[in-house]
Amino acid sequence: MAKDDKLVKEITPRDQDFAQWYTDVVKKAELTSYSRVRGCMILRPYGYAIWENIQKDLDRRFKETGHQNVAMPLLIPESLLEKEKDHVDGFAPEVAWVTEGGNNKLQERLCIRPTSEALFCDHYADVIQSWRDLPKLYNQWVSVVRWEKTTRPFLRTSEFYWQEGHTAHATAEEALEETRRMLQVYIDFYRECLAIPVISGLKTDKEKFAGAEQTYTVEAMMHDGKALQAGTSHYFGDGFAQAFGIQYADENNALQYVYQTSWGVSTRSIGGLIMVHGDDDGLVLPPRVAPHQIVLIPIALQKAGVKEANEELLARLAGRFRMTSDFSDRMPGWKFSEYEMKGVPLRLEYGPKDIEKGQVVAVRRDNREKYFLPLEGLEDKLQEILDQMHEDMLARAEKSMEDRIYEASNWSELETILKNKPGFVKAHWCGDPACEEKVKADLQATSRCIIDEELEEGAVCAICGKPAQHLVYWGKAY
Amino acid sequence: MAKDDKLVKEITPRDQDFAQWYTDVVKKAELTSYSRVRGCMILRPYGYAIWENIQKDLDRRFKETGHQNVAMPLLIPESLLEKEKDHVDGFAPEVAWVTEGGNNKLQERLCIRPTSEALFCDHYADVIQSWRDLPKLYNQWVSVVRWEKTTRPFLRTSEFYWQEGHTAHATAEEALEETRRMLQVYIDFYRECLAIPVISGLKTDKEKFAGAEQTYTVEAMMHDGKALQAGTSHYFGDGFAQAFGIQYADENNALQYVYQTSWGVSTRSIGGLIMVHGDDDGLVLPPRVAPHQIVLIPIALQKAGVKEANEELLARLAGRFRMTSDFSDRMPGWKFSEYEMKGVPLRLEYGPKDIEKGQVVAVRRDNREKYFLPLEGLEDKLQEILDQMHEDMLARAEKSMEDRIYEASNWSELETILKNKPGFVKAHWCGDPACEEKVKADLQATSRCIIDEELEEGAVCAICGKPAQHLVYWGKAY
Repeated sequence: MAKDDKLVKEITPRDQDFAQWYTDVVKKAELTSYSRVRGCMILRPYGYAIWENIQKDLDRRFKETGHQNVAMPLLIPESLLEKEKDHVDGFAPEVAWVTEGGNNKLQERLCIRPTSEALFCDHYADVIQSWRDLPKLYNQWVSVVRWEKTTRPFLRTSEFYWQEGHTAHATAEEALEETRRMLQVYIDFYRECLAIPVISGLKTDKEKFAGAEQTYTVEAMMHDGKALQAGTSHYFGDGFAQAFGIQYADENNALQYVYQTSWGVSTRSIGGLIMVHGDDDGLVLPPRVAPHQIVLIPIALQKAGVKEANEELLARLAGRFRMTSDFSDRMPGWKFSEYEMKGVPLRLEYGPKDIEKGQVVAVRRDNREKYFLPLEGLEDKLQEILDQMHEDMLARAEKSMEDRIYEASNWSELETILKNKPGFVKAHWCGDPACEEKVKADLQATSRCIIDEELEEGAVCAICGKPAQHLVYWGKAY
Repeated sequence: MAKDDKLVKEITPRDQDFAQWYTDVVKKAELTSYSRVRGCMILRPYGYAIWENIQKDLDRRFKETGHQNVAMPLLIPESLLEKEKDHVDGFAPEVAWVTEGGNNKLQERLCIRPTSEALFCDHYADVIQSWRDLPKLYNQWVSVVRWEKTTRPFLRTSEFYWQEGHTAHATAEEALEETRRMLQVYIDFYRECLAIPVISGLKTDKEKFAGAEQTYTVEAMMHDGKALQAGTSHYFGDGFAQAFGIQYADENNALQYVYQTSWGVSTRSIGGLIMVHGDDDGLVLPPRVAPHQIVLIPIALQKAGVKEANEELLARLAGRFRMTSDFSDRMPGWKFSEYEMKGVPLRLEYGPKDIEKGQVVAVRRDNREKYFLPLEGLEDKLQEILDQMHEDMLARAEKSMEDRIYEASNWSELETILKNKPGFVKAHWCGDPACEEKVKADLQATSRCIIDEELEEGAVCAICGKPAQHLVYWGKAY
């Protein structure tokens, strides 16, 4: 029992110090490791396996919506990055520059991609000639580098992993439709794969992507009530096309600029996964993204026939589920804690009594619910439990978020809530960046997204009292 | 017909100018595109889809042999790269250096990984403590950068994509076993997925990897008789472990150094795929790696019922094969040429007569063999044809290679063969690097690999006449 205690104690309770809890979980579950380059993380096998499952799920959704994967170079010449003014202003201050190659000083600096709009645009200018070449629906899975000052595993790292979709269309309508389609893909992915509910909508001008006309965002609420920007989908209009000269001949042979989008989800999503579902015993992973969906723990392994029966059960289930097991000589109690800490959705216990009764004991990670399951038809029952667990985790996360969404109609209410209650606040806004700045300066909160479908007629700005233009979700954010 | 002629003419015949043929095929099949950064290629959708299929096949083989994927950072501090002397001497001259980040000059230069031994070793020193932590069987899928002077798509590019396996073991024996296991995985992959036969064996000291004790290689013979180094598996002994301080406590609690390996296959393999199987009409892709295994071309699309029947057939086959189709208004002849150029393994033609007869016409890309197949049981028959095509392509490539492997027992024979006959030459060697240098200087050929299992007793070095230590494959190489 001493070991169990120790194991659990190594994780700081969430409500004592949430930041420390996060660091403890990431380290103990062996998700990442620090590297020698400041702010660059090593994704260890368990952390990378989560990312692989995220990639598989998203990649399937991208292919189902007609997208193709490509690979653009890692490096962007300075002159290419500079073509679109807002874009370079946004990214140049935080890039890493290559200035020497093969023992020679380079004639032009090359930056490591912080994002790849410039590369895709340059390629599109090369390969798009006619309306027959459109749309181009490309995506790539890569890492990008942004020289961050303060970093935390998954949440903010100098190098991170992501997918970036980049598309080109004949019309503004088609591009806008694509922007919203991919936003919906992200909403579905978060709910269906990670069991995370999100709010979504447009970013304000201040918060939108450098070079975008519009940025849609999905935002999730963490256990501590803070927001995590979890994915964005940008509409560029024809701004990049004009800057990079991406034109096509339409059906009447007239030259037109293309309309573009880009959209991305990164390894930040893993930070969200940890902070939405985790508890004081460690990770809690939703079954569809968990590297191992089920862990089999033999009970009384030393007794005759137990090892063989467990091996047989493991082989049987491995065809249907992502399985792991622990046949080591450690105590079952130690094993229980270990795999709970790692967030394995379902634990199976299988010992002499179970073998005799033709049953197996199953324990859910999220709510510790215990089941005695007959071996006959076991697979279907396990699948049912895993599916139910996903639904329950999503419902709990949804309730946790909804319970902490407040409304404020004036400064005093806004201030009281943001200073005292973790969560999001819905408040009307006049549209003036000065009011947005005031919320940030005085209350350390930012506009998360605009939800004008709920805008109330005649409402006034909660900050300045002037007529409202938008209804906005406000919150503190990672 | 004019269009067909033009299409074919755009590809230079192989025996007229093989290098130009290669460039034509890569461009016309839209595999890659040039980028603004010298020597960095863009992998276009069709080229990237081949790489995705290679990744899937290899990744499955790695996981079946117990390996786990991870992700190490992109950047290596100069001091870390310098820890192993041979390694830094080999790679430092060809790396790209990051010297500025976030508008500041960095205190220490960081190189973009040319390979990641230094990063894995640093991590292993951190996470390996006891014999219980061994073996570590890691792999990563990334791109690396080597500042090349002359580049060609896939064959030699400044940035290329690959997997790099890095493992740590308790004993030299285990590490050697791993080195040879992964060599065999590569041999199997080339034969079973790419239909490419290889020769394999140890590299000479001159040709081995910087920092390795032993380098095993797989080498394929291209259509022009030149060798392509297609994958390598290195045994490091405990050299890196000593340089990086990677020690574990053994079962008696004594500190021991680990023994390591690394092994890699890159996008070069796609260059091999093109140059082994391609013909004067373009690409010929083996069915297991082809982005589309079958293309469906409707015949007399304007006639009643043809479109619907083709749509039905396409939907039926899409569940089993990677399908594409062409319902455009172009002539069937144009379509035939287009998909032949793209190397799609099997073409199906389906028109009014076929519909009436309840059959479909199938044409193999590799040998143009034509089949009239009943719709009933079509899937199994198509699978059979695709499997047979793979076997035939492998057998042809094998014969083509074996027919061009010669033997030389003295300098005059070696010179005559290497100057006049494209292919490999088996010749004994005394082991003196000077003899190896002479072959390179005078005949522009290099030692490809050592095959001492065929070493003949009493044989003499074909270059200097002294007693032979090794039997070696020599050849000109990419």
